[in-house]
Amino acid sequence: MNNYIYKCTNCNRECNAEGIEGNFVYLCPSCGKAEKNKPLEGVFIIEYDYEELRKKIKREDFLKLPAGKFWLYPWLFPLDEKKLNFNVLKRLALSEDQYLEYDYNKSKIFLMDETRNPTFSYKDRASGLVALKALELGITEIAAASTGNAGSSLAGISARLGLTSHIFVPKNIPDAKRIQIQSFGANIYIVDGDYDNAFDLCLEISEKKKWYNRNTAYNPLTIEGKKSAAFDIFISTQGKMPDNIFIPVGDGVIISGIYKGLTELLELGWIEKLPKLIAVQAKGSDAIVRYVKSNSFIYESASTIADSISAGAPRNLYMAAKAVKQTNGIAVAVSDNEILNAQKDIANYFGILSEPSSASVFAAYKNLIKEEKIKAGDKNLLLITGNGLKDISALEIWNDKPLAKDYNEWTRLLLK
Amino acid sequence: MNNYIYKCTNCNRECNAEGIEGNFVYLCPSCGKAEKNKPLEGVFIIEYDYEELRKKIKREDFLKLPAGKFWLYPWLFPLDEKKLNFNVLKRLALSEDQYLEYDYNKSKIFLMDETRNPTFSYKDRASGLVALKALELGITEIAAASTGNAGSSLAGISARLGLTSHIFVPKNIPDAKRIQIQSFGANIYIVDGDYDNAFDLCLEISEKKKWYNRNTAYNPLTIEGKKSAAFDIFISTQGKMPDNIFIPVGDGVIISGIYKGLTELLELGWIEKLPKLIAVQAKGSDAIVRYVKSNSFIYESASTIADSISAGAPRNLYMAAKAVKQTNGIAVAVSDNEILNAQKDIANYFGILSEPSSASVFAAYKNLIKEEKIKAGDKNLLLITGNGLKDISALEIWNDKPLAKDYNEWTRLLLK
Repeated sequence: MNNYIYKCTNCNRECNAEGIEGNFVYLCPSCGKAEKNKPLEGVFIIEYDYEELRKKIKREDFLKLPAGKFWLYPWLFPLDEKKLNFNVLKRLALSEDQYLEYDYNKSKIFLMDETRNPTFSYKDRASGLVALKALELGITEIAAASTGNAGSSLAGISARLGLTSHIFVPKNIPDAKRIQIQSFGANIYIVDGDYDNAFDLCLEISEKKKWYNRNTAYNPLTIEGKKSAAFDIFISTQGKMPDNIFIPVGDGVIISGIYKGLTELLELGWIEKLPKLIAVQAKGSDAIVRYVKSNSFIYESASTIADSISAGAPRNLYMAAKAVKQTNGIAVAVSDNEILNAQKDIANYFGILSEPSSASVFAAYKNLIKEEKIKAGDKNLLLITGNGLKDISALEIWNDKPLAKDYNEWTRLLLK
Repeated sequence: MNNYIYKCTNCNRECNAEGIEGNFVYLCPSCGKAEKNKPLEGVFIIEYDYEELRKKIKREDFLKLPAGKFWLYPWLFPLDEKKLNFNVLKRLALSEDQYLEYDYNKSKIFLMDETRNPTFSYKDRASGLVALKALELGITEIAAASTGNAGSSLAGISARLGLTSHIFVPKNIPDAKRIQIQSFGANIYIVDGDYDNAFDLCLEISEKKKWYNRNTAYNPLTIEGKKSAAFDIFISTQGKMPDNIFIPVGDGVIISGIYKGLTELLELGWIEKLPKLIAVQAKGSDAIVRYVKSNSFIYESASTIADSISAGAPRNLYMAAKAVKQTNGIAVAVSDNEILNAQKDIANYFGILSEPSSASVFAAYKNLIKEEKIKAGDKNLLLITGNGLKDISALEIWNDKPLAKDYNEWTRLLLK
């Protein structure tokens, strides 16, 4: 068993893993609160014995590992190595070649392509770790509230591992995402209400049913699973880390996870400084941008075409804001129109179909270059977190059907 | 430069690579014919100096290569190794973990998951090789006729490599697939007619415009690119090849490619016998099943929910039928209803969203097991060639939207 503790990010209370994991405890017992339309309070972070880890593994050996398989270094995760079934883990593997380099406007630009993950989004990093923990604890049923991708991810990963999943969704879920969840054989519960209602209902039901809960930020393993991208970047670049990492931000869990992973790399002495984290939000859903500026949270209902980062009350707001500040990063919002243009650019220049949420990072990149807040000559990494095929309604906006023409008309037009 | 020749599969005429590739020749100059509603005649196959290759590389060294990157053994492809740009090749890499093992009905079942390829279908294997040949020849524009996946693949691969693509599609192309093609920045030409019209128009225009042509089967590199799965299976199984390989068959190019790759493994002395190839078609598009039985081709217009294997006149019929016969394989057709059930099974049991065309293999697997034509104890590999997200209309059929219920109703129902 690995040596790790749960530590509250608010009151610093430390808890042993046994007391937390076996008892379906997720937030800090002292100060934890999950209230409607507010960020979560008392979110746990997991801490390891880094001194021990430094002795256990050397940087040069770690760099020989393949990217995309976090279970190959289980001692950096809350996992019992002896209980891992390596036969089934292959089904959760990400591509080893997701770190891509392109030329763009006379500079290099780097993309982290998460659109080819097992269920085609970054969420698989969290779902994978949560599902492995469920297997370790002998729990066969997992629940989550979701606006789409997290639910589809948990449903697909559960199918791959033979687990049963329960997904609570708001009634305005896009049809395409609902269909993915159902296709994977998940039990779906459509709540006549919004994401907050689905979130609360999922907490209540899963507590009473003793289902393991994967609600984002609420289960600390969602943050912990999402940190794995930091290690994949470290491996893919062979330690030559980016200067800036652009991250789409809704609930703030991905940026928190990446920040956590990066601080661990620093703690282990494997990198010398933290890359700047650029938190990218949509203008219609910018609570974290506002919080970074003003240090205060005011709930505003969210509205943006980028549904995967639409969150009026980001669950992991405090940790996300800390990630930006501690890395001297930037929090920035882009318009829906800029997002659609960026979605087109990413498909045209890089051959990747991205979700609007993911496209936001390219929109922000272009703006910040223009405003000279970052340099094109920097090593800029853009995180493409979700696949555009998951819901093609945004692609439809900028791809009208051209008129059909007959054989003769085409030959006349094309050969004139 | 590799040592290889083009050989006609019909009249056995042999041609030097220089005369073919530089001159935009695709079919055999002696007997080649591309006629409406008929299989192509005079399709070329590429042959290498296998004696020389046997000396060049040993089986055990080949097995150390990663799966998913055919350019790492360019001497088994019509490529000039010196002209390969390894910086951009990573953008074409398939997953190294696409060969998956599952338990199903007390047996092992093996899946080859091509749904996570760069543009989410098997077609990327062909598009990748064709695009590399275009780069080698200094051609920057490529054309293809397509009902969807091949066009989307060529468009996406072209975007990744900085090439311009021209895609000719019939007017009944599903909207979702049209949108993918357009999103990648391809020039799209919607022909007021069927696939045959688009095919012919593409041949005429690309010949006059000197665009490199990727029409399936017509360009021998489509077959050659598609052979790479045989090598990936060989690497992934470390030489312990499946007994039976189930392949969805429309135009017959994938099965021809895999057969070609397998015969090369045999020729190199790296495997001892050929796996049986199971050609799976839809009942509404079964020209190859009929040809294998009767040895005669009769055109019937095709109609099936599995649009990616819908082909009244399979372009590569003769080679596909040969692949079945020479491996003591089976050609079999399944109903649309069986296909939809299989699509559900694949998502539920294996966590993979497949296209109807790909789901056909699982339907055939279940039928052939029941009829005792194959054994569950055999090593059965099912090729999942296309991603279900490319067109969710089939998934929609078996995933009605459940009714929304409010918070109280759900708690009453779930906690009773």
